[in-house]
Amino acid sequence: MKQIYFDNAATTQIRDEVIDKMTEVLKHNYGNASSSHSFGRSAKALIEKSRKTIAGYLNVSAGEIVFTSGGTEADNLVLQSAVRDLKVEHIITSKIEHHAVLHTIEQLENEYDLTISYLNIDASGTVDFAHLETLLNTPKKTLVSLMHINNEIGNILDIKKVANLCQSKNALFHSDAVQSVGHYKLDLQDIQLDFLAAAAHKFHGPKGVGFAFIRKNSGLKPLIFGGEQERGFRAGTESVHNIVGIEEAIKKSYDNLEKESKYVKSLKLYFIEQLKAKVPTVKFNGYSGNLEKGTYTLVNVCLPVAPEKAAMLLFQLDLKGIACSKGSACQSGSTKGSHVLAEILNDADMQKPSIRFSFSIYNTKEEIDYLVDVLSELVNT
Amino acid sequence: MKQIYFDNAATTQIRDEVIDKMTEVLKHNYGNASSSHSFGRSAKALIEKSRKTIAGYLNVSAGEIVFTSGGTEADNLVLQSAVRDLKVEHIITSKIEHHAVLHTIEQLENEYDLTISYLNIDASGTVDFAHLETLLNTPKKTLVSLMHINNEIGNILDIKKVANLCQSKNALFHSDAVQSVGHYKLDLQDIQLDFLAAAAHKFHGPKGVGFAFIRKNSGLKPLIFGGEQERGFRAGTESVHNIVGIEEAIKKSYDNLEKESKYVKSLKLYFIEQLKAKVPTVKFNGYSGNLEKGTYTLVNVCLPVAPEKAAMLLFQLDLKGIACSKGSACQSGSTKGSHVLAEILNDADMQKPSIRFSFSIYNTKEEIDYLVDVLSELVNT
Ligand SMILES: Cc1ncc(COP(=O)(O)O)c(C=O)c1O
Ligand SMILES: Cc1ncc(COP(=O)(O)O)c(C=O)c1O
Repeated sequence: MKQIYFDNAATTQIRDEVIDKMTEVLKHNYGNASSSHSFGRSAKALIEKSRKTIAGYLNVSAGEIVFTSGGTEADNLVLQSAVRDLKVEHIITSKIEHHAVLHTIEQLENEYDLTISYLNIDASGTVDFAHLETLLNTPKKTLVSLMHINNEIGNILDIKKVANLCQSKNALFHSDAVQSVGHYKLDLQDIQLDFLAAAAHKFHGPKGVGFAFIRKNSGLKPLIFGGEQERGFRAGTESVHNIVGIEEAIKKSYDNLEKESKYVKSLKLYFIEQLKAKVPTVKFNGYSGNLEKGTYTLVNVCLPVAPEKAAMLLFQLDLKGIACSKGSACQSGSTKGSHVLAEILNDADMQKPSIRFSFSIYNTKEEIDYLVDVLSELVNT
Repeated sequence: MKQIYFDNAATTQIRDEVIDKMTEVLKHNYGNASSSHSFGRSAKALIEKSRKTIAGYLNVSAGEIVFTSGGTEADNLVLQSAVRDLKVEHIITSKIEHHAVLHTIEQLENEYDLTISYLNIDASGTVDFAHLETLLNTPKKTLVSLMHINNEIGNILDIKKVANLCQSKNALFHSDAVQSVGHYKLDLQDIQLDFLAAAAHKFHGPKGVGFAFIRKNSGLKPLIFGGEQERGFRAGTESVHNIVGIEEAIKKSYDNLEKESKYVKSLKLYFIEQLKAKVPTVKFNGYSGNLEKGTYTLVNVCLPVAPEKAAMLLFQLDLKGIACSKGSACQSGSTKGSHVLAEILNDADMQKPSIRFSFSIYNTKEEIDYLVDVLSELVNT
């Protein structure tokens, strides 16, 4: 049976061009970028070229990009050092952040004398800006950590507005942009945030590489200590093939963004229309049914299914060859439900199964037709 | 001009078989190992197979292997959590450890109320066991961190003896085994250490992946928080291709160890003989000239060269197409000398150039001949 992949918010298929570049490096550029001989210099040159390319797309300087082993490490680097080294005493965040942010903050709360404020969120998953403004009226050194695009419900946050607010109140702003880098253009001269996290595998790059944007003169220190790699921000021999992989992935994503995002958006739109036609009482969680306030890459549907059928739904979809997810991948194995949906859904809707379908350039309209057929059959019988 | 690579202690050429396996995964197994659908399950299966393979070679259980982004992260994971979570108050280490250990400990010393003891080291780079025993007579909760094989001078530490001593004194023992895993067989039932760090790129695997061995019920907590990956020890989407790469690399290394180590050892022996013949006053730093007490993979030579010529030596070797290093790669760009040699050499020898040559299966006798010719010409003219 054909396997159909609708879980592109969990991770994505890697582009062939990315694999080709990585394989080239694995074969021919095995030098350690810290070595001063020719093997080392050519590895170093590859890394610095990648850094420059990425910096260019984000309109920042190369020295502000620090390669990490992924989005989670980038979030940890920023949050842990902000508290340990920048002496942040107050973190404002929300309960619908990714666990890479929430669990790191919980750990810091155990370790340090730290106040954590969680922003009010309404039923659409929207952050309460008035609440944020009130919370920012504090003499305490404050960091705001809010994600750009929510990985479960796709809500897009106006990070420019948050950045401006934070600047005016003298607070630092970190944004987990793991779901937006590679999918939306970001100009970080225009958006004056301090820190940002990204991961290659969310935009058709390799797993195990990402970066933190760390604005100049931030005072941040490493999470991982040792050698002088990454200008002293991140020790450890660099994964050159992965770094070249993220460069190629971001290049292809941004250079083809207009065409590709239009295509993916059309798939989402088509899915919404078709599903509404066959399952009229379907609900779209958060802003995932909205094509302006939600990302074009994902839909999170609450299906009108009785609780006793709900538990089996994901399993049945898997049997039909459809890969999708209850929420974020890192909790899909667990029996706990989504912490994001728990914040925004009413009790009745929480009893019903909610499923996230996330799309990419490798999906087709035919796959959507099949998905809608299978879904309506499962729901309507 | 042909480039010859004699810097295998900095990093190694990747085996073709490793690259092939990695490319397969990059192409066909792009699922997120945390996803419950078929794509996710097959990624998960690959990771767990790798974990089991590695655990098998070290004679430990799979749950005791935690994949990291490399040796540095593994060192940081162990050391940082030992102090933060296990409440270690006293660390015993030595000044000839890798910076991944030394700089992490320095950071911890700034942050916590921690006593650091540095073991006496003699001119051969040998740890003073009597000193260790004395230092272990303390009521303070103690962790010993000593590397198995020194990356600059190749000295092999008797880690079984250290482990037994630590056990008898109720101290924890972490060993940075980045230079020995893949090059020496380790039976961690026999050697009762608590923690160990390894990195794939030192034994013909990919950069950006390694592991920590963390003995069962250690109480260690993550360095990087977020999802539940690696049984809760290390959050972040796993780099499946890199993990499959380290599996294949360790397999090939250990399955061919007898044959390959014999070959590499013969190259080292040949180099020593030839060099002694042409440059009789050459000295071998640490135990790097000793084939029992030093690793078979590297030689660190102190050359009888006037200070004014010394500075240019590495550069001249590079011009001749020979890649080698002053010490560890992470300091080769810096103007600071080797912190390891500074501990063991006398002032006169510290003025002379010391160079590390490290060998692998991809080197040949002809390359050694060329190296010795070039070296003796540079030294003797
Ligand atoms: C919003 C968000 N933040 C952080 C992460 C973590 O990234 P990684 O798994 O690459 O560490 C993810 C996905 O896993 C995510 O969706
Ligand atoms: C002894 C030793 N420890 C730790 C490391 C760090 O490993 P990595 O660069 O893979 O993080 C190295 C090499 O770089 C090493 O030789």
